[in-house]
Amino acid sequence: MKVGFVGLGAMGQGMAAQLLKAGHTVTVWNRSPAPVETLVAEGATAAKSARALAAKCDVLISMLPDDHSVHEVLVASKALEALPKDSVHINMATVSPGLARALGALHDGLGSHYVSAPVLGRPDVAAAGKLNIIVSGAPAVQERVTPVLEALGQRLWPVGDAPERACVVKIAANFMLATAIESMGEASALTRAYGIDADTFLEIVTSTLFAAPAYQGYGKMIREARYTPAGMKMAWGFKDVSLALAASQERQVPLPFAGVLRDSLLDAMAHGDADKDWAALAETAARRGNLDAR
Amino acid sequence: MKVGFVGLGAMGQGMAAQLLKAGHTVTVWNRSPAPVETLVAEGATAAKSARALAAKCDVLISMLPDDHSVHEVLVASKALEALPKDSVHINMATVSPGLARALGALHDGLGSHYVSAPVLGRPDVAAAGKLNIIVSGAPAVQERVTPVLEALGQRLWPVGDAPERACVVKIAANFMLATAIESMGEASALTRAYGIDADTFLEIVTSTLFAAPAYQGYGKMIREARYTPAGMKMAWGFKDVSLALAASQERQVPLPFAGVLRDSLLDAMAHGDADKDWAALAETAARRGNLDAR
Amino acid sequence: MKVGFVGLGAMGQGMAAQLLKAGHTVTVWNRSPAPVETLVAEGATAAKSARALAAKCDVLISMLPDDHSVHEVLVASKALEALPKDSVHINMATVSPGLARALGALHDGLGSHYVSAPVLGRPDVAAAGKLNIIVSGAPAVQERVTPVLEALGQRLWPVGDAPERACVVKIAANFMLATAIESMGEASALTRAYGIDADTFLEIVTSTLFAAPAYQGYGKMIREARYTPAGMKMAWGFKDVSLALAASQERQVPLPFAGVLRDSLLDAMAHGDADKDWAALAETAARRGNLDAR
Amino acid sequence: MKVGFVGLGAMGQGMAAQLLKAGHTVTVWNRSPAPVETLVAEGATAAKSARALAAKCDVLISMLPDDHSVHEVLVASKALEALPKDSVHINMATVSPGLARALGALHDGLGSHYVSAPVLGRPDVAAAGKLNIIVSGAPAVQERVTPVLEALGQRLWPVGDAPERACVVKIAANFMLATAIESMGEASALTRAYGIDADTFLEIVTSTLFAAPAYQGYGKMIREARYTPAGMKMAWGFKDVSLALAASQERQVPLPFAGVLRDSLLDAMAHGDADKDWAALAETAARRGNLDAR
Repeated sequence: MKVGFVGLGAMGQGMAAQLLKAGHTVTVWNRSPAPVETLVAEGATAAKSARALAAKCDVLISMLPDDHSVHEVLVASKALEALPKDSVHINMATVSPGLARALGALHDGLGSHYVSAPVLGRPDVAAAGKLNIIVSGAPAVQERVTPVLEALGQRLWPVGDAPERACVVKIAANFMLATAIESMGEASALTRAYGIDADTFLEIVTSTLFAAPAYQGYGKMIREARYTPAGMKMAWGFKDVSLALAASQERQVPLPFAGVLRDSLLDAMAHGDADKDWAALAETAARRGNLDAR
Repeated sequence: MKVGFVGLGAMGQGMAAQLLKAGHTVTVWNRSPAPVETLVAEGATAAKSARALAAKCDVLISMLPDDHSVHEVLVASKALEALPKDSVHINMATVSPGLARALGALHDGLGSHYVSAPVLGRPDVAAAGKLNIIVSGAPAVQERVTPVLEALGQRLWPVGDAPERACVVKIAANFMLATAIESMGEASALTRAYGIDADTFLEIVTSTLFAAPAYQGYGKMIREARYTPAGMKMAWGFKDVSLALAASQERQVPLPFAGVLRDSLLDAMAHGDADKDWAALAETAARRGNLDAR
Repeated sequence: MKVGFVGLGAMGQGMAAQLLKAGHTVTVWNRSPAPVETLVAEGATAAKSARALAAKCDVLISMLPDDHSVHEVLVASKALEALPKDSVHINMATVSPGLARALGALHDGLGSHYVSAPVLGRPDVAAAGKLNIIVSGAPAVQERVTPVLEALGQRLWPVGDAPERACVVKIAANFMLATAIESMGEASALTRAYGIDADTFLEIVTSTLFAAPAYQGYGKMIREARYTPAGMKMAWGFKDVSLALAASQERQVPLPFAGVLRDSLLDAMAHGDADKDWAALAETAARRGNLDAR
Repeated sequence: MKVGFVGLGAMGQGMAAQLLKAGHTVTVWNRSPAPVETLVAEGATAAKSARALAAKCDVLISMLPDDHSVHEVLVASKALEALPKDSVHINMATVSPGLARALGALHDGLGSHYVSAPVLGRPDVAAAGKLNIIVSGAPAVQERVTPVLEALGQRLWPVGDAPERACVVKIAANFMLATAIESMGEASALTRAYGIDADTFLEIVTSTLFAAPAYQGYGKMIREARYTPAGMKMAWGFKDVSLALAASQERQVPLPFAGVLRDSLLDAMAHGDADKDWAALAETAARRGNLDAR
């Protein structure tokens, strides 16, 4: 299968490399050229444009950061229109349910296919091919691209036909990550006000009840009060919580925790933390209680 | 060491049995007699009253359900006044920081010692001696009771001198449990509104990012929509969140998530769910979005 | 001055009539024809299109329901491009700060002027020319259109140059209306749970501390539990709170009450109340406490 | 009728003076002596103790600041036991529903009567005899004390028999005051972020939609950023919101706005504002958005 890959950021670069290791023929394109060179050195072919790349794919994988860039790179550029009939576009980034639906309809009209396949896992996991991949799309199409996805993930999690379904699962999972951070932040602020430092408190809970990757990863940052370099910048976290709020609005499902998160994230950004990791929500929780001045 | 044990509920009974297995001499007392008989059959001695029991202890362990029962069974009854000089009272239940401070002061006046040692773990973990035990109290006294606590727990987590410290850690950990449930409830309501059932969604997140005991235990209840028999009744959960709110008030630390939890728990109880497991907060989240009527 | 008026809904119709009474020459256009006929009978001239209308105006007033309709009726139609040089467009509806900025820039490029002038007041107030009008725009331009605005309002409230300023004041005022409703709803639910009906409670507070139009108007609906016909539909109220949330995001100002309102409004709409007056938030507050079942 | 008055703070002093002006025979007692001297100069008789005062009353009015002081001054002192048979105790302060019920039962046992009559109005209104008085208690007893209450208030608002009812109305009204302040604070923070100062914004809304005493009084403080001397200290405001939360818990009625208020008040107090007027919640709203640093 000829695989095209567009969007070679921290995640995408490792994923494309992993496809090469698995023996796939991979063509790549990226808005900035550096990662293209790296991948060419590893065996990939460089395309001159997203549109040129699309024209030669059986499978086009995109890993672009947000709705806007998907629109710009693949839709407005008419790249998708260049795809061969019956080819498949797999969008592995986190986008809105609305965009997923729109892309599904667009491909229907073009005679190509759309699969949503957002992933759980950070860049190191991506580079190791150990992602968890949530997949929605027509079952027969999902089946066709399974060999490609299996090169990237330790497990595929199919969640049905409708293209927005996998998006919503990803959005809901990221919302849960944000709640885990806020929860650690608030709980650490409370215990700190009683003289117990965050390092002690979070070691206890993340070694026991909350011995899970999400808590241990972000918990480590909070324990060390080290929020740069950011794995997930506050501003991106805000974008993800906004996606949850938009989905909750679309289907009229109140999400009280998301409202709290929205305000904590705005508070953090208003205090200059937009580029810190969103684990720095713990600092916002401490500031509410004026803990640094005690 | 002669150990007295008061409060033989689901947790206490397994803990007292574990002390017997570890070779300690254990005298027990309980407000209702059935568990006393069970433990006597396993080698314990029955005391006629809490006060009679206290009079013969090197170490008195109490595992009573709330502040009120501690006051009634141990303080108003003058049981603590019967303790030998230099003996130690270990309170292993979840009580308020205020009560911990008051008990610490009371023991100081009586010439006995007070150690806070609340636990993380459910009854089956208690019966296996595998609890995680958070401990605060004078270091020398902590050291003296370590052999007793080691019979009950897989690990001790010392958090300092002040008696309320261990309480606050436990209260904060339970607050985090409540946030984990609410988070799963809200996220499941959102994904369900897009056609993905809770079983599918929660299998994904609790197998990956949230592969931790707290999420897997409560997640299982939500996936199966089975909230009885309750491990932690909604009404007890409300009591625990109220302890977090009281602590946050005492030290003036805002806890926005706790305010949301308070309302969700009240909503649940107003709808007849006081005796369900607090994992049924997921039903409250679904009700807010009227999902059953869709 | 030749005045054009676009957007003859419940508000706009009374405002245009008021301009005629004040002796202005008024040309009107509307997407649905009925209100045009009424106004022609009162002395207005009908234009064939928004663009035709714009071509003949010294002052163009628009009272269109939301950002989308402004874009469609005035921008996409190229109506604004037809405005004579140095003419003034007064937007008296509630739109987003972003749209106000965009329209300001658009008019700068076209050689025409833009004034934001959203209003406080319901249709009967509009028809009586007693609106309160919040105005932002270049001072000299504000001055030029003062005679027109004075025909519509009992008082003008200038808030500076930037076109989005008046929008934000209006959005913030509507946010305050929503909080007043939610506050009455929650307080009435609480007192009702103690046996005091909403009619008794709200009579007391709206006759004393809260003897203000906002409280008395919405309080009457809650006291009578009569939410149709809607003055402000729940769905429009949601749109207005969403504008507050968007503004709060744009400038990174947390608004915790807006988050609560968002969820209460979603809850209401999920329960079928989208077309009721947003005073029906009181029913949502009662439902949270299951009061109807007590 | 012989009237005894206990609790001569800022409110009580003016109320007792008003009773004297109305021609009642008034005996007074207070924990600190200064206001007693003032009232004796105006014609009151001083009692040596609350108990001595109670022994000579047809009607005992208390205006003590909280549950604790009522308990100490009237219950623990056995003052209430000294009341003549069939006399009436009117509690005009804001206390918890639980205390109102307990006092009702206590008086039933003693052969005296209990009326709850909390008031709406600040000290100047009290001194002018223009309070609004919410009354609950047995109808025949309410009738007997009407002449006394009419000397103090411009209007009586009866809300039924149960002693806690009037308390809950007062608590709910104070909760609404707090929401009005928070609403002005959040809305002012938002508009300020767009360059409109609080003075301008609040003049508009408190002259129009929100032209009510509550908004104008607190609005003035926020417009002038002058929070001392406090009419209602932040710490007392917290006590009142806590009463609302306790009532909401007792009857299982979620109050999401009260949760937000609780956190804003804690944030304010953690930042040193406990003695400022609670209108200073506006500063907390601004701090969340870091407005002073912009």
